[in-house]
Amino acid sequence: MSEVDTAAVRKVLDEVRAEGRDSLTAPEGKRVCDAYGIPTPREGLATTADEAAKLAEEIGKPVAAKIVSPDILHKTEAGGVVIGVDGADAARAAYDEILANAKAYKADASITGVQIQEMVGGGQEVIVGATTDGTFGKVVAFGLGGVLVEVLKDVTFRLAPLDTAEARSMVTGIQAAEVLQGARGAEPADLDAIADVIRKVSQLVTDFPEISEFDLNPVFASASGAVAADVRILLETEERAQPVQHSQEDILAAMNRLMNPRSVAVVGASDQAGKIGNSVMKNLINGGYQGEIHPINPKADEIMGRKAYKSVGDVPGDVDVAVFAVPAKFVPAALTECGKKGVTAAVMIPSGFAETGNQELQDEIVGIANEYGVRMLGPNIYGYYYTPQNLCATFCTPYDVKGGVALTSQSGGIGMAILGFARTTKMGVSAIVGLGNKSDVDEDDLLTFFENDDNTQCVAMHLEDLKDGRAFVETAQRMTKKKPVVVLKAGRTDMGARAASSHTGALAGDDKVYDDILRQAGVVRAPGLNEMLEYARGLPLLPTPQGENVVIITGAGGSGVLLSDACVAEGLSLMDIPPDLDESFRAFIPPFGAAGNPIDITGGEPPSTYEATIRLGLEDPRIHALILGYWHTIVTPPMVFAELTAKVLAEARAKGIDKPVVASLAGDTEVEQACDYLFEHRVVAYPYTTERPVAVLGAKYRWARAAGLIG
Amino acid sequence: MSEVDTAAVRKVLDEVRAEGRDSLTAPEGKRVCDAYGIPTPREGLATTADEAAKLAEEIGKPVAAKIVSPDILHKTEAGGVVIGVDGADAARAAYDEILANAKAYKADASITGVQIQEMVGGGQEVIVGATTDGTFGKVVAFGLGGVLVEVLKDVTFRLAPLDTAEARSMVTGIQAAEVLQGARGAEPADLDAIADVIRKVSQLVTDFPEISEFDLNPVFASASGAVAADVRILLETEERAQPVQHSQEDILAAMNRLMNPRSVAVVGASDQAGKIGNSVMKNLINGGYQGEIHPINPKADEIMGRKAYKSVGDVPGDVDVAVFAVPAKFVPAALTECGKKGVTAAVMIPSGFAETGNQELQDEIVGIANEYGVRMLGPNIYGYYYTPQNLCATFCTPYDVKGGVALTSQSGGIGMAILGFARTTKMGVSAIVGLGNKSDVDEDDLLTFFENDDNTQCVAMHLEDLKDGRAFVETAQRMTKKKPVVVLKAGRTDMGARAASSHTGALAGDDKVYDDILRQAGVVRAPGLNEMLEYARGLPLLPTPQGENVVIITGAGGSGVLLSDACVAEGLSLMDIPPDLDESFRAFIPPFGAAGNPIDITGGEPPSTYEATIRLGLEDPRIHALILGYWHTIVTPPMVFAELTAKVLAEARAKGIDKPVVASLAGDTEVEQACDYLFEHRVVAYPYTTERPVAVLGAKYRWARAAGLIG
Repeated sequence: MSEVDTAAVRKVLDEVRAEGRDSLTAPEGKRVCDAYGIPTPREGLATTADEAAKLAEEIGKPVAAKIVSPDILHKTEAGGVVIGVDGADAARAAYDEILANAKAYKADASITGVQIQEMVGGGQEVIVGATTDGTFGKVVAFGLGGVLVEVLKDVTFRLAPLDTAEARSMVTGIQAAEVLQGARGAEPADLDAIADVIRKVSQLVTDFPEISEFDLNPVFASASGAVAADVRILLETEERAQPVQHSQEDILAAMNRLMNPRSVAVVGASDQAGKIGNSVMKNLINGGYQGEIHPINPKADEIMGRKAYKSVGDVPGDVDVAVFAVPAKFVPAALTECGKKGVTAAVMIPSGFAETGNQELQDEIVGIANEYGVRMLGPNIYGYYYTPQNLCATFCTPYDVKGGVALTSQSGGIGMAILGFARTTKMGVSAIVGLGNKSDVDEDDLLTFFENDDNTQCVAMHLEDLKDGRAFVETAQRMTKKKPVVVLKAGRTDMGARAASSHTGALAGDDKVYDDILRQAGVVRAPGLNEMLEYARGLPLLPTPQGENVVIITGAGGSGVLLSDACVAEGLSLMDIPPDLDESFRAFIPPFGAAGNPIDITGGEPPSTYEATIRLGLEDPRIHALILGYWHTIVTPPMVFAELTAKVLAEARAKGIDKPVVASLAGDTEVEQACDYLFEHRVVAYPYTTERPVAVLGAKYRWARAAGLIG
Repeated sequence: MSEVDTAAVRKVLDEVRAEGRDSLTAPEGKRVCDAYGIPTPREGLATTADEAAKLAEEIGKPVAAKIVSPDILHKTEAGGVVIGVDGADAARAAYDEILANAKAYKADASITGVQIQEMVGGGQEVIVGATTDGTFGKVVAFGLGGVLVEVLKDVTFRLAPLDTAEARSMVTGIQAAEVLQGARGAEPADLDAIADVIRKVSQLVTDFPEISEFDLNPVFASASGAVAADVRILLETEERAQPVQHSQEDILAAMNRLMNPRSVAVVGASDQAGKIGNSVMKNLINGGYQGEIHPINPKADEIMGRKAYKSVGDVPGDVDVAVFAVPAKFVPAALTECGKKGVTAAVMIPSGFAETGNQELQDEIVGIANEYGVRMLGPNIYGYYYTPQNLCATFCTPYDVKGGVALTSQSGGIGMAILGFARTTKMGVSAIVGLGNKSDVDEDDLLTFFENDDNTQCVAMHLEDLKDGRAFVETAQRMTKKKPVVVLKAGRTDMGARAASSHTGALAGDDKVYDDILRQAGVVRAPGLNEMLEYARGLPLLPTPQGENVVIITGAGGSGVLLSDACVAEGLSLMDIPPDLDESFRAFIPPFGAAGNPIDITGGEPPSTYEATIRLGLEDPRIHALILGYWHTIVTPPMVFAELTAKVLAEARAKGIDKPVVASLAGDTEVEQACDYLFEHRVVAYPYTTERPVAVLGAKYRWARAAGLIG
């Protein structure tokens, strides 16, 4: 960006720092804005009445005159502000008046001068700001000014820096965007000018990380541009700790070892049923893991038919992963052994660390891990699964339905819910990973692996916080271009956040910041646990839609109405059916059926009507996704519908046509079996709900749009 | 209300009507407001310049002068408005100017005079209005004025008339209510004064139904009151049809016959499998209905072992209900037979009426039914179930899990989803009723029955429209004081509404009107089909909470965070645990467990910890509802948790303590069985979701609050 003058900003900030201040005066703020081309009112500093008059004349419009003094903070109270000053004589008079008032207010005040400033106004008042978020670092904010919007909290955030397109998405992304776009015949504001201000602010705080807070409030946005009428800049008073950074290559190498280990040691392996070290051994062996398994136990020679070693150090050959199943107090010594042995990754099942208040012990093991370069999962986790290796390094039970979804959870309870749900729905899984206290390995380490893992097509993550939000966003932004990432962010509300901090000691960030920035990263946010699980189950089954035209084909008019409602709730576009296509559909349905969209084929129709209309929906290239509403009748029983749907889809796929198809089945309990069958044939189908299939399709669309995959 | 002068309003309206107008002039509007004590600016009509001067002097503040002429609609365009007129001389000049402008604008305009009006302003601009809704009749509206709120659609509706408390709930019920309550240090507006204006408007449009539209926009609301600066009143231009009204006694008598018939005739009964008339016969017989069953078929002597009659008229003795299973074209004749026979209710399964465009045939059968006083269910329905009578008058399959929930649906597809869901969840049902085209019997008829039916504890209704919204609200308001009513209103969005009108020909009302007025009626609105079904299943199991204090007890901290999120989403209040109670809980949980709320008992705890904490939660009278978060462990397996919870609850109930308890079970598939067990013991419990149990509890609270059952 050639337009910026970083040296000028550096000079201002150095001056402020030199004076021991952590906030900038208004003229200093203006110098900073000028350096980055952020439009502010024309103004100048007058140190005599004549200078004031000259400035007012140059500006040629009514001006405001304001005292500038480091000793006077409340300018208005001191009589230090005169507005609506029109012309040279009035400016001269205002100057004298302000100085007299200031001296009366505080006789010994050091007076820099009087600021003579163009009065701006008109158009809409907006706010552009930047702040330093504990999770994400520099973020920019945008909203409409005024008490109403502050009450309604209509504001949006993004990670800084950002480009013009992203900035533009903020301007049109607030609820009241219509106001700026010229609601009710008002003149539209120059949205590009507003976006430009946002972009420049994002660049400024990125270039000068010591700017902790930056506020342009108000910015007057009109058809002729955006002018910041007031600027407030605060500087950091202390250094912020930077998170430890690993290189992409290092992360990938370590995660590859963790997920595809040649050998696993179980520290605390046991023959005694009910012990964690016994469950882990059983699950590794019974799960079918083909690498070497080394039980570590100082008191045994053999465990479950495998030679036991007193220490990891005694194991011959390399050990890629050590799974810990010993009480917390024994961890430091055993971890040191692992470090000396050169173990790549330690899986810390034990609890009794930060989550129980023992931060000291956690810091100790993190220190050991860092010293020896051991990457550490946990502590306080159930372990992890990686099904391509038949690897079940947990104290739970093996899981064997292989598939494309990787799931992670910060909480053990949620991990168990993932396992139960996966098993009951026969969800194909590549990995299930517990993250627990996240003392080392966190979401972006795992994302880096899954991004490059051909066995994984979709990732779903439960998290309560992010240790390094910026690293997560960077990884997710890359990853979500290729594969969907679903996030369940717990602690989304104040009340929830309170519970989060008592649980993990993690301070959950403001939810609106998370919400906007996760979206910026291309992540699909799940509103709840069940949605996260259903998205994870359904997204990999659905092909990516090639466009926005969604069509509902339904046997039940009532379902059609509810499916339409759901489409609106999910931001899907019901296609406006062109006349020729309408006619083609009408050829298959009774004369009283409703074409248009939903296409209501009516309830008493035979299988051939479903078949013909679904085929047409798949084959017409103008349609991009289908939502089916099935109504259980004697004429077309549930399994007949399921089988014909699967058949028509298979025929279309054989012709190279693959569109997302979801279905809602209304009927007696036989529809449950039909839904299972449809899921097996890559149709996301649910009984007794019209919302859920549409929600999964909506999630697929949100991902595909963010990834830029829809024309 | 002694304050109103109905005669004055009658006089104004009659004058307007006499002149063939359908809108009131501003002075006429003011006379109407004055008659109902609705504050407007002081003003008067001047017919000379001197009168204008005198009025301006009397008002003693700046005034606005505005032309009054039936021939000049666009006053400003005509140069007919002067604002900021200060003092007698200025008023005289303004008068002359306006008259000159008016004559120049339209030489032959009839000029009534010039309105001299106090200029009001300051405070917040609000809008108070009333309109005539197609579904609900007279409704009042309230919102904040200005373009922002029109963009954000922050407006609320109620049925007119309303009392002061209900009007007050509108003022504080908009999203931006804080603005009126003094957000950010602004002076709060006089909320009672605003509410008073709303109440008076609601009374006015009720007293004078010919007022079709009434707008006070803006009303200036400040600490010193609320003054309507502009009033716009439109009158009906044609008569509106009033829905047919039955007396409460007549409705109840007819519905009692329908639900508890002594004899049922099946018109179109058949021996031939696959025919609807065969399915209905089978279901009546196999369902166990003990009353008389009479097959009607002109071509048979006996059907399924019962004597068949050629016509209903041939049946000896009374026939309470005739179930129709003949093609549409045969309905009129057979219905006439029923009318002559004195049949109480006709159940019209056949389709081929308004839903296929044949409105004429539907009108014909409605005419016949009205003529003979036969109440008619449908047409275009699956029939109905009433389990206390083992009555299954449908072409579906019998349902035999008796219980307290009655469900109705406008759509047959949704009816089938109800049946399947009920069967798979073993939901205890009293009735399932199809309403279809609702040509006669509608939701309020059924509500009247269920209100008085001891077998029904909760009603859930799927509807796309209401034929008579006002009758529904009146019945629901009475009913919901005693029993919860859940409504799934389909067609909630524009897109959905479009589908509704193509489905039933019913014009779905604006969703916001439905939303507010259903809430006013005490109805719990379900956001989707699945929620309607889950609320119906869960609400009757939960006792009514006695207060707002909700406590979460969880073995999984991660579930605790998500359950807290869900509480906020559902508007539930997590109890602020007092120190003594906190100490009592702490006595049972590990030192690193988190007391407070959620109470995190931690994951590795034995059954005794769950038991002790749940018991304490039930026995402490300050706690009103419990949310349990279970985490599957070896120490406390799912069924052990389920059984101990049921046991502790039974003990508490034996002591007369009954509180709503819901549970989220995180674990492997055994939690599914545990949830079934818990449901059987009146704990609303779900696996793999934290949201659903809290949503059901939230629905119970919404109902209980609206019914005034929570202190």
